[in-house]
Amino acid sequence: MNNFILLNENAIYYECNYSCDNVVFLSLGSENFFITDSRYEIEAKLLAKNCEIIISDNLIKSIRKILKKISIKKLYIDSHEFSVAKYEALKKDLNIKFIQKPFFSKQKRIIKSNKEIKYIQKAMSLGRDGFDSFAKYLRKNGLQKDEKYLFFKAKQFLSHNGKYDLSFDPIVAIDQNSAKPHALPTKKILKKNNLLLVDAGVKYKRYCSDRTCTSIMSNITFTRDQKFKTKLEQKIYDIVLKAQQTAIEKVKVGMKANEVDKIARSIIDKAGYGKYFTHSTGHGVGLDIHEYPNINKRSKVIIEENMVFTVEPGIYLLDKFGVRIEDTIVMKNGRAVVL
Amino acid sequence: MNNFILLNENAIYYECNYSCDNVVFLSLGSENFFITDSRYEIEAKLLAKNCEIIISDNLIKSIRKILKKISIKKLYIDSHEFSVAKYEALKKDLNIKFIQKPFFSKQKRIIKSNKEIKYIQKAMSLGRDGFDSFAKYLRKNGLQKDEKYLFFKAKQFLSHNGKYDLSFDPIVAIDQNSAKPHALPTKKILKKNNLLLVDAGVKYKRYCSDRTCTSIMSNITFTRDQKFKTKLEQKIYDIVLKAQQTAIEKVKVGMKANEVDKIARSIIDKAGYGKYFTHSTGHGVGLDIHEYPNINKRSKVIIEENMVFTVEPGIYLLDKFGVRIEDTIVMKNGRAVVL
Repeated sequence: MNNFILLNENAIYYECNYSCDNVVFLSLGSENFFITDSRYEIEAKLLAKNCEIIISDNLIKSIRKILKKISIKKLYIDSHEFSVAKYEALKKDLNIKFIQKPFFSKQKRIIKSNKEIKYIQKAMSLGRDGFDSFAKYLRKNGLQKDEKYLFFKAKQFLSHNGKYDLSFDPIVAIDQNSAKPHALPTKKILKKNNLLLVDAGVKYKRYCSDRTCTSIMSNITFTRDQKFKTKLEQKIYDIVLKAQQTAIEKVKVGMKANEVDKIARSIIDKAGYGKYFTHSTGHGVGLDIHEYPNINKRSKVIIEENMVFTVEPGIYLLDKFGVRIEDTIVMKNGRAVVL
Repeated sequence: MNNFILLNENAIYYECNYSCDNVVFLSLGSENFFITDSRYEIEAKLLAKNCEIIISDNLIKSIRKILKKISIKKLYIDSHEFSVAKYEALKKDLNIKFIQKPFFSKQKRIIKSNKEIKYIQKAMSLGRDGFDSFAKYLRKNGLQKDEKYLFFKAKQFLSHNGKYDLSFDPIVAIDQNSAKPHALPTKKILKKNNLLLVDAGVKYKRYCSDRTCTSIMSNITFTRDQKFKTKLEQKIYDIVLKAQQTAIEKVKVGMKANEVDKIARSIIDKAGYGKYFTHSTGHGVGLDIHEYPNINKRSKVIIEENMVFTVEPGIYLLDKFGVRIEDTIVMKNGRAVVL
């Protein structure tokens, strides 16, 4: 795709290996422009690849100056990236056709390079280390702490004491609260026989990781092998685990994304809990925590080599508990490999 | 202002004391609607004040449904908040006049309540504690560490080991790098006689703090009293400190923001370094790290009681070093009080 303009920090990083929080990127085939303000001049000139750096105190004005000089007929923009104010300031009286192409950068990023996969793998490994230190802490000091405190502790351990950015605010949910897929931490106290759901990820060189574990406090480990206190908990856990593992085993290059969703969903359906699996089976992961492909009922995207996405079925029993199990996988040699 | 719509998470938090990352807020005078998806239902119903919670898997569709039912003529939107895609989906065939009012929520938030000031004060206090622990670490272990490592350490100490969110990524810059107002961390090593600039802040209950200190490694303290190794460093530091302290002393309710800027700028101008003070004197601080009032050459906003803003003049000598000194202040009884 020739002739496009980008504003999103991650989308621009993908184009030229550098980004900052005040930049417009203009690509005109072989000519690319990175327009930013003087605060980022030195870094941009040092790090941004295959583009001319333009320093400006009015980015839109500078873009318009370039667009007035060159003769192009069409320019692609992502209508989700541009605010109404910026879009109107940009296109005013220019003799160019602006074509709105939603999420085109995410579309470009759907297949990961081996370097990107390496970074996501490293982020996953840092994430697992964080889960392990958090589990160690919980075994020693977790009892009688409330979710809010444990949420802070999860941030501390997952970020390796603040060294790495988190992919998102972790979810740390006890018993009834785990029945909310996006629970916020409350003052609920962690007790011996409680179920604990933790969903968290960290970033490595801007790339995100994403993982969810459900465990029991009396013997807390963030592994897949779990022994719960009640039969219902164990039953639900085993169904979700089977759905998750089966989807990971069976996903193959060439399948449609909705077929992957169906593998996980039909196991939960058959067990009688279909209506309690209220979200999609997964989502792509990369520079953004939510990328393509979407793994849901409607997505007809063909799964390809080097796609990276989560597999995260869940069952949520309101006022009781919820179980979600999530890994991030990469498609390699036609099959899923857990990162 | 009656009849407005908001998308920004902080702007919505300000209206109803709760927010999340997928919400549209519609205010129609006495009737307010908080439209979000099922993930946030329980928290929204528990925490959001003075508004009806509507759960939807298509927020724009639900807003349109309400707008079709009621009879209003005008609806204010912030043209910087709405993407082109959302705006077009929203207004399609509705018989309502959409009035674009840039940054109206930030405008509403320009005067802080006493509760907001308390939160910012707590954030500043947590920030100062973080600066102090970082200084203690630097005195003991800082020598021979590079900026990247020190950047991670700054995040660790400022966030109280990940417990609090940071207002922004800290700036940790040694000597020549401190000459860049927004330096990114490099592999430059910290040595005994180096100058070190640290700009950082943390959030407390969503409210930001912001502070900058410049010190010398051989006797590092993040206080205002500093003894540098070279005469030039000391001279520049003393000019910036005088500019900063004088602006804080002299700012009064009723002044225009550009007059506050002028107090700091004229001291630096008179000392002969005017052209090396390349940014504005300050900015408002609140839920966002950059709020109103802007304290710059052009801003004619009248300073009022309970406004909160930074005072942060700087002098940047390219390839040598930079000095910036920043406090966040609140206007109380007509004068500035450092938070």
